[in-house]
Order: sequence, then structure tokens, then C-alpha cells
Amino acid sequence: MQKTGHFIAGNNYNDNGRSIDIYNPNDGSILDKITSATDESINKAIESSLKAFEEWKNVSISKRSEILYEFKILLEKNILKIADLITHDLGKVKEDAIAEVRRGIENVEYAYGIGEILKGEHNKNVSSSIDSWSEFEPLGVVLGITPFNFPSMVPLWMFPLAIAAGNSFILKPSEKDPLASIFIAKLFNQTSAPKGLLNVLNGDKEVVEKLLVNKNIKAVSFVGSTPVAKSVYKKSSEYGKRCQSLGGAKNHAMVLPDANIDYSTNQIISAAFGSSGQRCMALSVVMVFSEIKQKFLKSLTKKVSNLKVGLDIQESNSFGPLVSSDHREKVMNYIELSQKEGCEVILDGRDLLKGKNSNKGYHLGPTIIDKVSNSMKSYKNEIFGPVLQVIEIENINEGIKIINENEFGNGCCIFTSNGQYARKFSNNVDIGMVGINIPLPVPSSYHSFGGWKNSFFGDLGIYGPDGLRFYTNRKTITQKWPENENEKSKIDLTMPNN
Amino acid sequence: MQKTGHFIAGNNYNDNGRSIDIYNPNDGSILDKITSATDESINKAIESSLKAFEEWKNVSISKRSEILYEFKILLEKNILKIADLITHDLGKVKEDAIAEVRRGIENVEYAYGIGEILKGEHNKNVSSSIDSWSEFEPLGVVLGITPFNFPSMVPLWMFPLAIAAGNSFILKPSEKDPLASIFIAKLFNQTSAPKGLLNVLNGDKEVVEKLLVNKNIKAVSFVGSTPVAKSVYKKSSEYGKRCQSLGGAKNHAMVLPDANIDYSTNQIISAAFGSSGQRCMALSVVMVFSEIKQKFLKSLTKKVSNLKVGLDIQESNSFGPLVSSDHREKVMNYIELSQKEGCEVILDGRDLLKGKNSNKGYHLGPTIIDKVSNSMKSYKNEIFGPVLQVIEIENINEGIKIINENEFGNGCCIFTSNGQYARKFSNNVDIGMVGINIPLPVPSSYHSFGGWKNSFFGDLGIYGPDGLRFYTNRKTITQKWPENENEKSKIDLTMPNN
Amino acid sequence: MQKTGHFIAGNNYNDNGRSIDIYNPNDGSILDKITSATDESINKAIESSLKAFEEWKNVSISKRSEILYEFKILLEKNILKIADLITHDLGKVKEDAIAEVRRGIENVEYAYGIGEILKGEHNKNVSSSIDSWSEFEPLGVVLGITPFNFPSMVPLWMFPLAIAAGNSFILKPSEKDPLASIFIAKLFNQTSAPKGLLNVLNGDKEVVEKLLVNKNIKAVSFVGSTPVAKSVYKKSSEYGKRCQSLGGAKNHAMVLPDANIDYSTNQIISAAFGSSGQRCMALSVVMVFSEIKQKFLKSLTKKVSNLKVGLDIQESNSFGPLVSSDHREKVMNYIELSQKEGCEVILDGRDLLKGKNSNKGYHLGPTIIDKVSNSMKSYKNEIFGPVLQVIEIENINEGIKIINENEFGNGCCIFTSNGQYARKFSNNVDIGMVGINIPLPVPSSYHSFGGWKNSFFGDLGIYGPDGLRFYTNRKTITQKWPENENEKSKIDLTMPNN
Amino acid sequence: MQKTGHFIAGNNYNDNGRSIDIYNPNDGSILDKITSATDESINKAIESSLKAFEEWKNVSISKRSEILYEFKILLEKNILKIADLITHDLGKVKEDAIAEVRRGIENVEYAYGIGEILKGEHNKNVSSSIDSWSEFEPLGVVLGITPFNFPSMVPLWMFPLAIAAGNSFILKPSEKDPLASIFIAKLFNQTSAPKGLLNVLNGDKEVVEKLLVNKNIKAVSFVGSTPVAKSVYKKSSEYGKRCQSLGGAKNHAMVLPDANIDYSTNQIISAAFGSSGQRCMALSVVMVFSEIKQKFLKSLTKKVSNLKVGLDIQESNSFGPLVSSDHREKVMNYIELSQKEGCEVILDGRDLLKGKNSNKGYHLGPTIIDKVSNSMKSYKNEIFGPVLQVIEIENINEGIKIINENEFGNGCCIFTSNGQYARKFSNNVDIGMVGINIPLPVPSSYHSFGGWKNSFFGDLGIYGPDGLRFYTNRKTITQKWPENENEKSKIDLTMPNN
Repeated sequence: MQKTGHFIAGNNYNDNGRSIDIYNPNDGSILDKITSATDESINKAIESSLKAFEEWKNVSISKRSEILYEFKILLEKNILKIADLITHDLGKVKEDAIAEVRRGIENVEYAYGIGEILKGEHNKNVSSSIDSWSEFEPLGVVLGITPFNFPSMVPLWMFPLAIAAGNSFILKPSEKDPLASIFIAKLFNQTSAPKGLLNVLNGDKEVVEKLLVNKNIKAVSFVGSTPVAKSVYKKSSEYGKRCQSLGGAKNHAMVLPDANIDYSTNQIISAAFGSSGQRCMALSVVMVFSEIKQKFLKSLTKKVSNLKVGLDIQESNSFGPLVSSDHREKVMNYIELSQKEGCEVILDGRDLLKGKNSNKGYHLGPTIIDKVSNSMKSYKNEIFGPVLQVIEIENINEGIKIINENEFGNGCCIFTSNGQYARKFSNNVDIGMVGINIPLPVPSSYHSFGGWKNSFFGDLGIYGPDGLRFYTNRKTITQKWPENENEKSKIDLTMPNN
Repeated sequence: MQKTGHFIAGNNYNDNGRSIDIYNPNDGSILDKITSATDESINKAIESSLKAFEEWKNVSISKRSEILYEFKILLEKNILKIADLITHDLGKVKEDAIAEVRRGIENVEYAYGIGEILKGEHNKNVSSSIDSWSEFEPLGVVLGITPFNFPSMVPLWMFPLAIAAGNSFILKPSEKDPLASIFIAKLFNQTSAPKGLLNVLNGDKEVVEKLLVNKNIKAVSFVGSTPVAKSVYKKSSEYGKRCQSLGGAKNHAMVLPDANIDYSTNQIISAAFGSSGQRCMALSVVMVFSEIKQKFLKSLTKKVSNLKVGLDIQESNSFGPLVSSDHREKVMNYIELSQKEGCEVILDGRDLLKGKNSNKGYHLGPTIIDKVSNSMKSYKNEIFGPVLQVIEIENINEGIKIINENEFGNGCCIFTSNGQYARKFSNNVDIGMVGINIPLPVPSSYHSFGGWKNSFFGDLGIYGPDGLRFYTNRKTITQKWPENENEKSKIDLTMPNN
Repeated sequence: MQKTGHFIAGNNYNDNGRSIDIYNPNDGSILDKITSATDESINKAIESSLKAFEEWKNVSISKRSEILYEFKILLEKNILKIADLITHDLGKVKEDAIAEVRRGIENVEYAYGIGEILKGEHNKNVSSSIDSWSEFEPLGVVLGITPFNFPSMVPLWMFPLAIAAGNSFILKPSEKDPLASIFIAKLFNQTSAPKGLLNVLNGDKEVVEKLLVNKNIKAVSFVGSTPVAKSVYKKSSEYGKRCQSLGGAKNHAMVLPDANIDYSTNQIISAAFGSSGQRCMALSVVMVFSEIKQKFLKSLTKKVSNLKVGLDIQESNSFGPLVSSDHREKVMNYIELSQKEGCEVILDGRDLLKGKNSNKGYHLGPTIIDKVSNSMKSYKNEIFGPVLQVIEIENINEGIKIINENEFGNGCCIFTSNGQYARKFSNNVDIGMVGINIPLPVPSSYHSFGGWKNSFFGDLGIYGPDGLRFYTNRKTITQKWPENENEKSKIDLTMPNN
Repeated sequence: MQKTGHFIAGNNYNDNGRSIDIYNPNDGSILDKITSATDESINKAIESSLKAFEEWKNVSISKRSEILYEFKILLEKNILKIADLITHDLGKVKEDAIAEVRRGIENVEYAYGIGEILKGEHNKNVSSSIDSWSEFEPLGVVLGITPFNFPSMVPLWMFPLAIAAGNSFILKPSEKDPLASIFIAKLFNQTSAPKGLLNVLNGDKEVVEKLLVNKNIKAVSFVGSTPVAKSVYKKSSEYGKRCQSLGGAKNHAMVLPDANIDYSTNQIISAAFGSSGQRCMALSVVMVFSEIKQKFLKSLTKKVSNLKVGLDIQESNSFGPLVSSDHREKVMNYIELSQKEGCEVILDGRDLLKGKNSNKGYHLGPTIIDKVSNSMKSYKNEIFGPVLQVIEIENINEGIKIINENEFGNGCCIFTSNGQYARKFSNNVDIGMVGINIPLPVPSSYHSFGGWKNSFFGDLGIYGPDGLRFYTNRKTITQKWPENENEKSKIDLTMPNN
């Protein structure tokens, strides 16, 4: 089998780095091989990125915008191809894979509005005859390290904006499913952008370590699990870089007695089981008021039972396999642990596997766990699978307290028809993205994505206005053209006041 | 002598921490003593800050604005008292001390425009019947660590904005001259703000170390030297905090043949020798075209010779002593080193001290060093004294290269009458704050302050729009009020598209 | 009695224009006399305004800000004096008069944030080496024509922002109660602003007509009744000026069965009867669902009966007299008309006057009229008195339809606890300012005020961001500093593309 | 010949209105016929527009954006076809026609960034527990009346943004060359937008008059000559509409002795003679310092002599014919008049016509007129042809004075290498669009277009941020969800303070 190498300066680039197998989670077959980038490959990529940056940073806004438009056209044309790569490499069902790409394309669209979003602030006469304005300048070479669960969307959260702002970009995709990411990078290289503006280096944490200490990389965007996010943030900072580092999550829904049960369960199911729960915004916990719990669970369980989860690639499937055999093992262990901790598994996704020994895919059925308490280990950790945990609560304050005591702070939502409850909820949760009757409140491309607490390390959210600011340095220029200078100019050693 | 303790929850607070002497640099006398905060003091301050935060975060914008206005009134009333503290504790001449405070007050004014500057972004119908908006929420307890050279201005760059945004603030002023900072904190406590919103902890790097690892502190603003800035940035990040860390500088002026010599020398002298050169935006190096060098130096030297630098506190002095005996020693060592490296000291500030053994102040006269090259050690380091180094250049590109190869990136300026040269300069220097015929391009309070390269670690500049964003967390809320939900609502496990 | 003249170039200015009596509505006494400005006075004011503009337009932002701060201090110091003038000249109760001034002062505060709010938009490299930015420049002399009902607040909506933006301002206050307006203008002239920056011309519609055709006046801000607003808008436009013209209102509240009755009636009473209903945002109509109507009316009527309305100036009064005898007559005629049209007056403010012939003030008690239909003439017109009309409705759509068919579009509000109803309401009403459980949704100073339909003519709302844009002209500058021009420059007659 | 009718609700619509011939200015042939819309056609269009608006106003941002993207694709595909229509209908040379369309497409791109640019302002806790935000709502049916000189670009300045903001749009293109406009409207109707969102009504000023008084039209955008612009502004305002009305121009260049002559003449020629001078931003007057005048004119005349202006459609032509025979007559009369007033015609475009009687096109060669003074009638009027007038000046102030005394205020530019002169120029000219070494400073699509003085009537410039604000109504919502209302709520009749 031909190894997929790296992608540098517009060309495939193979090195003799350690080989890593790429699996198809639908059937466990080996899909491809990559190598973990060698020092030489890294140097080559950096060099190419620096060269592209020198050319690109002075390219006009209109030209940059044009290239992003070319890229959008290419993405639109290749959307099915990209989705197909995602389906085989990650296991996401086709419709969901397409939806992921679409969501990514929205960020390209935001990026080609660079003329509007890159505006500096200009003041005439800040002091007599002195004007001052800001320019938002690119940083240089920036690095994106992306997770397995959105191989197209998360890279597209990062590089279009970074490049629109004038930077060059090195992408280190997940070594679990890099194929869609690499394909997208190649598409970008079909535009008239300078070669080297977007390079791809494959590999695992060793490569990451080497990149984080490289002085030519000025900024790091990371999306992954919390322990790695923390470590990337620390290391980047140690080496003087700016860093935005997105970690794990535990997203809670709260269902109030005045919520519409049918609407709420539809929404919660979509957000809990879509992509097999492998989304950092996936719902993991539903907190339901005791007075409606039975009714709620009845509706929920019935509907979840009707989800279709096959053991092979089927367009009609509700969701596909987990990303790897190891990961499925980990998820099943959490289910088991929860039983040991006293929970009741009212729908058990492991049943899917019974008597199906011939199947090689990493599938797991939808699972609902009741009688969860927030002191349990199985609750505290991120499971990242098709598992929904149910906590019974008595009032809003109790639910808010549970949310705020959780170490993560990505997303949460409330289901209610009452304005006061919704406002109280959104105002008091220490969470970055809040849904009111919306289960998966991922901000649109012209807002920014970012959690709080252990879900996010850094100042500025990813994509949108924050993302642009992250990829730029502020330069403030203060200008005076002296006139009749002999008369007015004098020595004055005090701090100048406006 | 009565020790000055800390200031916690609206009260003076004395502990038995290690005692630190506070000197008057004008005559070397001991002005006061502080203690280095004990663990108990730190805990007490944190506790008080947390309590104040809980109350303050829900206080309305109009109320917050009102309190900042009260504070401004108090600052205006006490401006001479604050300046007097600065003069005795740091040695800054009175007029300059007053100017520093005024510059600080501008940041209070910016902060009370919190209604305008804290606006979130609202979109109706991001998707059908779905609205989305952002709220910029306070972080919690934030920490400011401030330098000796602006004991009033730099704290005022930080806490008014942090507090306006809803945070509580702990100030750790320089242990060399904390008196003005403490006084200002007490003034703030005369407003109707909750006690504990602004606490002061004194001490040195031991205290800093303890604060940086404290999990209750969510963000750190630091201004100081580059090695400490780097270390604070690293440590803050290691403990998951956001951090903006401002370090040292080496600010270059470039003088072109078409510049007005008289205007340029006036401006350069003001920026090089004001506050004895103890400003992070002070001019340290002037690069002058060879064809005008003699004429330029003649004008420069003559004017600098006329500066008045006494050996005691005099309102008529151009600038005062250096902050400490040690620091003067260090500056004089750089002068000596430059001579060893082959430079010519054409005006020697050390002459001031000859035969004046009785004087106890840490004064040093203005010094001009010619024949400097950018390979010299005396050039590469930040001197932070009344010393101006002269480099001869042949063209703009040479000057830009020198600037960009320097490790610092705070400020720089060009003197020219030509638009193309100015634009070329501002466009190509890797510097955060650029002056065109302006020697000390400190951004106004409604812009933001921030260097590049080793002068700054972090994403967001200090004060102004960046400062506000630094002190806030983005919360994005997505809302739908379902109508006719039974008809429209359905289960859809794909990633939602707008 | 000494006549109060005009105020021009920092001085009182008397002319021999037609004399107009100023009444005290509390007792019908004559308080003062003004004259209607002669052509000579107008010319003198214009000349003075032009002169001040020439000086002022190049004054730095920081200096402008400083002067607005001086003005705020003066307003704060004189707040009781201003309130007292309002109480005697208009009849507003003291506490309400003070509140009006405070609301006005907030606009001064917004205006001194001019550095932030006047920022232009800067783009580097819109095309290769071409930069472009916008500057928001003052218009010149602008005119404000203000109504009787807010003699301090409405002028303060206008001139602080106009002046902050660099314009000079001519104020033509209501000829019914100009005293507070004139006093405020004099206060402004105690600052260090150039004399003539704020001039006052007194008089009635004749003066207005002359000013509207004066070519030196570049913009007109008007607040008054709809017929005059229309006519001012037309005339201003005919003479090429920009104009924002605010007219009358008919503000509806809608009370849903899920609203808290006690809260709602408190709020509605405050908004309907405050200032005797003489506010353009006063509630005039309450639409209540039939199922709660009796309960609602019972609560409402009981509370309104307890309002205190005396026949002289008393601090304890809930509200004061109407502005004039004529106006009271008009309001009483509407009450009578409504009876003729079949309404039921369930609380009759006219009872206050029975057997109190000796009283000379223009008082009228609070009045509640039930059984109102939106086809009635007494409903369609703006009454502008302490009169609340009640309409019974069956559902939200019916209420929205009534609101949208009304010719006015200033304010409206809904009382409900349901998020969906609130969103449906705010989304569907053709109204500029909408309250959700807020009866008097006057935007804060950092938002803008503006109705829709016949309540407003123009593009840009008054005060806040819109107000600033209204008082400025956009100037867009596109700049290139040609380099190596001989090589690159060529003749190209096609439309340039970026 | 088949008449081209109107375009209503997605269909061609023919009526029996007065027939108007459409000429091909290249050869004087009749290209097509349109009719002047009858009352019935107007009613039909309005009805269709209202219907489309009701549907469109609640369509989500993402859907609107998508449709604008579809439109962009269609425009890109048909760019040659549109250019061809322009070439035949207006006479613009092909390359210039293409450039015009490209410039128009940029406005479509800006419009599909609607998510970013339509953001409202949100504040939490403006007062205790009270939130407030603004929504920018569509106005309803808006009207665009466009000029002959940019049959594709000017319509594209208007309707994409108006429609993106949620309005429906009626386009009344120039009756001289409506074909490209109609074609573009048909392209828009190939997207999935509701039919009727963009209707076209043909006709002349009679149709305009009828539309301006129609109460269903809420706003008017007009581009044309100053007398008509004034009249449209007046009439629109009389009928309560908002209006932005762009008139004529007289754009001056100032050439300083320090300017590069070769660069300057290249730029000036491009801007003066492109599109036969039929652009509202075309350079009409060059003011040159006496000391360089001869050198400048020599360079200018030589280059202009080399322009290629044929008498038929040729791709190699520098520019094409004037729009009509009448218009050419008018331009030639101005040349004659200038001779009578004492000017010297140093290059006479009328020579082109000598002895070419057989030619039927409306061509005129490039003309340079020297010795012009600003008191001349031939100077004061807009000529709108390939005619450049030369004024000799002695200094910058003289040039600025000439510019400011001219009744128009669209564009102007300076050629210099000196920063002070450029800043002085841009700061002091009463002109909306200023070029520094840029002859045709048309703002990019993310800035806004607008002149001052008699070149513009209204508040808000066309396209860009101003354009969006023009097409929207501000709605400010203030919201409180009362909690524990019985305790806190009380009657308070004073004006509420935040």
C-alpha cells in the first residue's frame, strides 16, 4: 500500500518517519498509512511556510478574498468526495458528514469578508493634528492541531481565517483520520494562493511536541481532549507563542416541567446521539425535573429505540461506528462503571453487539443511563460516545449548581417556555455556549466558538471575530505631519497628554 | 517607622511578612517599609475578592459607570497628592508625575463608557426563528502586577477596565515604590464600590509566585522586564490562566534627510530623557542617515547640554534620579561597556556625579553615545536610563533591518516629511506601536497598548478595546422559542446547519 | 418684567421681536416673557455659530471630551436648580424633573466617549499598496427644535453629541417653557468651549420657518407632534438639509393572562400617568385579554385611585398640571368624545376640578377609559394627558394587528412570562422601541431613540450611535504613496478594480 | 421589433405605456423599445413587491446569504453577456464594461456577509436585570432609480444590500440604456429568491413621479444629476420616505511640484477620459502649480494624443461614444463656451468628427482646455464628457479654496509625495471621497460611497455600512423577566433612570 505522506509547498512529500495505520472504523480494515513527520519534513514545511508568508502578507485584501472564493467553489464541488472520505475514515454517516463540511464552508465564507472584518480603528486629531489608527497584522506561520471527530470542519474553523488575515498555516490533522483534512488542503492548493501557504504535516504527539517548540511558529490553535489541551497551552506559552486550546466537555440539558416534551426529546436525541456522541458539543447529560421525569423518559426511550444503527455503512443509519476499537472499549467501560456506581442502564447500546461476532466495525448502540449522580466517576468524565446520562433534579438552582461544579464549560441548554427561567439559566451558568430550547448551540460562523473552565484555555475563541483577532497582531500608528514646526515644537520631557 | 501593610476589603492590613524598605531615590533616605504578603494575607485577599466579585458581577452597567465616575472625581481632586507620592517614591519630576496620573485617568474615562464598549453582538434569525447573541462576562478575580516606573498610570491601565467589566482585582504593585499605587487603591475604596473589589497585596517575586499558582485567580496582567514577563506568562499558562505580559523594549527612531532637524531633535530629546529614560516607550536608539549625521548631532548635543538635571528635588529639573542605586550602577556599567566596545560617549551623564560626593540621590546626567553598532552587547540590552545611542545608517531598509533584528518590538518612530517613506517604515517594522514624526507613540486610552516580539506575550494588548476583551469571557447564547412545535420538530442527528 | 432674550455668542441678547408670555401651569401666573427672534437675531446667531464652528472643528478629541466633562460637572452641580425651573415652567413634579435631568446627563456622558464612538474604519491594502479609511466629519451649524415636555432632556439628547462631533448648535426650545433649556445653554457656556458653539434662539413657528430655509444650517433635529414633524422634515429636505424628525405616539401595552397582575399594573400606571402622560413614550392604551380583564381593571383602578394629584406644587404629588390651559381643554375634550363614542370612563380625572373654581393651575386627575375600540376617533389621536384607554382583546395576533394599524410607531410593550409570546410580539410589531415587561422602553444613552411610521421621519434615530452618525459626514480617503512608479504606472481607462 | 416590457414577479410584463426607443450610441441604430410603466403596471409591481416582502422578511440570515451567493455565481457566469449589453446600449468599451460589472459584483459579496454586517448591539443589565438590544429590520418595499452611466454597477450598489437586509426592491433603470439592468434582474430571478423580490419598472420621469408618491414605497435610492437628485429628495421627503440622493460632480485633481509627473499624468488621464468622462467620479479639472505647469501639460497632452478613440466598436479603443446625440451636443457646446470665455483648447476632441460625416455614432475625442478660471460658466457646470479643464494655481490653499467654493463635493485628489500636504488637503476639502495619489477614489464595497454639498442629499452614503443602515429600521428591545416581583415592584411615576 502506498503511504500518504505530508503535503508541503503544493506537493506530496514522503519521508521515512514512523508509519501509522489509518483504519476504516466501519469494518476495521486498513485504509491507508501515514508517517510521523521527521525533523527534515518539519524543517521543509516551516521553510516553505515562511517563504509563502513573506509573499502573502502584502497581498491585497481583494486578492485574498478572491482566493478564498475560489476555495469555496472547490469545496462546494467536492463536497461529496470529502464526505465520502469522512465516512470511510471516521465512520460518520453520509448526511452528517455533508453537514459537517457545510458548516466548515461557512467559515470560508466568513473569511472572505476579510475587508469588513479586518477593519482597524481610525481617529483623526486624537491630539492636535495627530491621527492614530490600528492595523491588524498577520503573525507569521501559525499551527493548527485538529481532532479526529471533525476532520473537515475544525481545520476549516482555523486556516481560512488565519490565511485571510495574512498568515501561512501548518495543519497537523488527527493521525486517526487525516484523509479528509489532507484532501481539503490539496483543494486549497488548487487555488491561485502561493504554494506553501497551507502545508500539512502528519503524525502524532511527537510531531506536536517538535512543532510547539519551534520558534518560527507564532501561534497555535488546538482542539482535542482537556489533558492535551492543557499541555499544549502550557508548552506553547513556555515558548512565547499565543495559544487557543479547546478541550473536552460535558454538556448538560435541563428540562423544565413547562417544556414541550415532544420537542425536547427530539432535540435532545439529535444532540446526544448524532455522530455517535463524538462531538465536543454533544449532549451528555439531561437533568430533568422529578415531576415530569417518567413522562419524559418514556418519550425519550421510545424514540431512541427507533434509531437505526447498522453494523455497516448505510445511508439510512442514524449514526455510525466509534472512531476506534479502543475508543469503543473505553465507552463501554464507562457504561459498565456506571452500573457499578448504581446507575440503571435503561437502554443498552452494547446489545447491538450481542451475537454479532463477525462484525468488524466499531459500532455501539444508543445508550440511556438513569439514576446518575454528579458525584459519580462515570459522570465526571467525558465519555464521548452515544451515551446519555439522566439526572433527576428538583429545581433550576440545583441544575445550575451541577453545571457549575462540573469541570467543563463548553455547552449547555435549557428547555422551557418561560422567559424568566431561561434568562436565569443563561445568566448563571459558567458555560461558554448556551442554548435556550436549542440542544447544540454551536455559534454561527460570524460569532465565535469557545467554552469556559477546563473546556478552553486562552483569551480568544476560535473562528468568527475572536478567531480573526487571535490570528492578528495589533499595530497602532500615531502620525503627525509637522507644520510650522519651528514655532510650535519645543522640548517637553513630561509624559505626553492628549 | 510604621509599616505600610496591605489593603484588603477596604482596610489596611498588616502581617508579619518579611519587611522591605522603600527608598526615596532623591536622597537615598528610607521613606517607608512594606511587608511581603504572607499566605494568610493572600488567602484573606482572595476570599475578599471572591466575595466582592459575587456581588459585583450582577451590578448594572449604569451603576458600575457611576462608581467609575466617582473614582475619576477623587483622582482629579488628589492629583497633586498622588504626584507628590510619585516624586518622593520614584523620583519623577512633579510635572511629569502629574502627566502620568492624567494619562492614567484617561483609562478611567474609557472604562466608564462601559455601556458602549461592552456591547455584545446580536443576530435575529441566524436560522429560522433562532436568535443568537454574545455577552461579555467577567472572569472573576484578576491580578495585576505593575512596574516601578509608572506607579499610578500602569495600575490605572488595568483595574478600572477590569472592574468595569465586572471582575474584582488584586493589585501587586512594585515593591520599589508602591506608595502611589496603594494610595490610589484607597481612593477607589472611597467610592460606593463593594469593599474587596480592589485589594492590594505588597511584596516581591515570592508573592507573585504564590499568586500565579492560585486557582482562584483567572487572569494576569503584567508589566515589567522581558525575563520576568516571559516567566509570568509561562507560569500563568501552566496554571490555566489567561495572561497578558508586557516586557522590555529598545525603541528606535530613524531620522531621514528630509526631516526637520529642529523638530526632530526636540522630539527625540523629550522621548529619550523624560523620566530619566525609565519608560518602556522611551527612545533608546536614534538611527540617522550619514548625510545629515553631523548636523543632527550638533543640534542634539547642544540642546541636551541645556537640560537641567539637579541633584535634589527641583520643579525646574528636566528629569529626576534613577529609581535605585543598583539601577544607576547598571546604567553606568552599560555606558562603560559601550566605551569598551568602541563607542564614543559624546555627552557623559556620569560627569554630573564628579566631585559631588555629598549627594545621596541616584541621579545620572543625560548621555549620548555615538558610533554604536547593532552587534554590540551594550546595544542589544535594554538600558532603561537617560542614555541615547546613535547608529549611522545609509538608507531606510538598513534601518528597518536593524529594528526587525532587535529582539524587542514595543515602539519605534520615523522622522520624515515624505509619505512613501513613512508608509514603507510603518508597514515593514515588526513593532507594535509606530510613530510617524511622533517619538513616543503611546496609544490613546481608546486604542490599546502592546508591543511585538519579546516586548509582549499574549494575544490581547493592554487597556482600550483589547484590554476589555482580555478581562471578559465570551458567552454566546442561541435561543429558539418553539412554536407549533409538534408540526415542525423532528429528530435529525446531522450537524445542524444554519 | 424683564424679558428673557436669546443667548448668542455667550451673551444674553434682547431684540424687539414679538413678545410671548411664559406661564406657570401650577397657578396660571406669568413667569417670564420671551421674544420671537427677529431676522437680525437669527443672522447674529448664525454668524456666531459659523465662527465657532471654524474654530471648533479642528479641536482635538481629547480637548472636546474635556469640555463635555466640565459640562457634566456643571449639570450635576445645578441639577436642583434646573429641576426647579422645570417644575415652575412646565409643572413636572420635582422628583420627575430631577429624573429627567439625570437622563439628559447620561447623553453628555455618552458624548464624552467621543474617542471611541467617532472611530473611522481603516483598511490597509484594499488594493496593492492602497490604504483606505473613513473619517466622520462635522456638518457645520446644526439646529435643534425641542418640545415642551422635556425642556432639559431633549436638548441634551441633541447638542452634546452634535458638539462632540465638531458641530456648532443652535437650540430653539419650546416657546411654552424655554427657561430650563436656556439655563442649560448658559451652563454650557461656562465651560471653556468657544463662545457661539451653542446659541439659543427663542420663538415660535415663524422662527422655525426662517431657520429651516437658512442655507447655513446643515441639519435639523426636531421633536414634537406628528403634523409639525412632517412639515419640518419636508421643509428641511426641500432646502437640502438632512433631518431627523420625531412626531407623536400612541403607545400600547398588551397584558397576557400569564402576566403578574400586580407587577403589570404597577408598571402600567407609572408609564401612563407619569408627567401627566405628557411623554412621547407614555402608555396610552392597554390591551388586555378578556379572560383577565376584570381582575386587571380592578387592580388598576384601585391603585390609580390612590395616586395623589394636588392642585398646587407639592413634592408628594404623583404628577403635576398639564402644560397649558388650552392643552387641558383638548385632553378633556377627548374624554368627552370618548364618552360620545360609547366608551365608559371608569375613573374620571375631571372630577378633580369640580367645585374648585378658585384654582388657577392646569391640573387634571388620572383617567381610565374602558370599552375603547380602535375605530374610534378618540383612540386614533394622541391625547397626551393622564388618560389610559382600555381595549379588550382575545389573542396576541389581534393585539399586534391593532398596534400595526395605528399610524404611530414609537413604543409598545407586552406583559407576559412566556418567551415565545414575547418574541412573537417583538418580532411582529412595527414599532421602534419595544418593552418586554418594561412599560417605558426608552433606550439607554448608548443605544438610540427612534419610532417607526408616523412617529419618525428620517434615517437615523436620535442620540446614541445613530445620533452621532446623524451629526457627521462620512469622508473616505484612499491613499497610495507610489514607489518605483515609473515601472508600474500605466494608463488604464477602465473602472479600477480592487 | 418586440418591445422589452417590465419585469414583475419573475415574468416579463408588457403594457401599453408610451413607447421609448433605446439607441445604440455606437452607430445611432435603434436597439430596442421599452414602455413607460402604466398605473396598472406600477400597481402590479407594488403588489408583487409587498407579497414578496411579507415572505422574505422572516427568512433566515443563512438562507438570504445563500441566495446572494447563487446570484454571484450567475453574475460571474454571465459577465461577458452583461458587458456586451453595456457596450451596445451605452457604448462603454468592453474591458471597461467588464470592470464595471466586477465592481458591481463586489457589492453582492459584501451583501452576503449579512450575518456580520447586520449585527445588533446587545447589553446585559443596562439596569438591574434589564437587558436591551437592537435589531435592524427591513423597511418594506424600496425603490432604486439608476443612471445611464453604470447600468450594471449602480443597480448592484443598491438591491443586493437592500434585499440582504430583508426588503423587496423595485428598480427603475435609466430609460436611455436599461438592457443590462433588466438582464441582471432576470438573473437574480433565477435564484431561489421569492418572485417579486426584485421587480423592474421601465420609464422616465413620469414613472418616477408616480413611484415617489406611492405610500407603499418606504425608501428611495437615487443616482443622477443634481437638479433631479434635489427634486427626488424633496418629493420623497414630502411623502415621508427616507431618501439618499446622489447628484452631479466636478472632481478636481491638484498636482504639486513634488509629484511624479509621469505617474500623475497616467493617473489623471485614466480618470478623466475613462468611460468618455461619463462617471460621477471622473476627473474634470486639474489644478496644477504654475512652476510645473508647462512640463505637466506637455506630458499630459502627448499621452492624451495617443489615446485611441475610434468611430465604431473596437476592443482597442480607449473609450467609446457618448450616450446620446443630445448629450454630445451639450458637451460640445461647453467646449465652445469655454473658448468664448477665454480658454484655450489645447486638444480638441471635436477634430475627431471632421470629415467623417458618414459616422452615425455619438463619439467625441479627448479634449484638454487650458486657462480655465473658476468664475467661468463652463467651469461651474458638470460637463460629463471626455473633457479635462486646467487651472493654474500658486499654492495649496488656493486650490483648496477653489474646491470648496465649487457647489459639488463628490471626489477630489492630490498628487504629492509630501505627507503634510496630503493631510492638509484631505483635512480641509469639503469633499466626500478624497484620493491621495489616487485619481478615482471610489470606496471599496466595504466602505460607503457618498459626496458632500450638492453631490449628495441625505444622511447615509450608498452601499457598504451606510447602505445597510439606510435600508434598515432600528428596533430597540428592552426586556425584563420579573422575579420576586411582588417584593420589588412598585409604582414610580418618575422618568426611569438606568
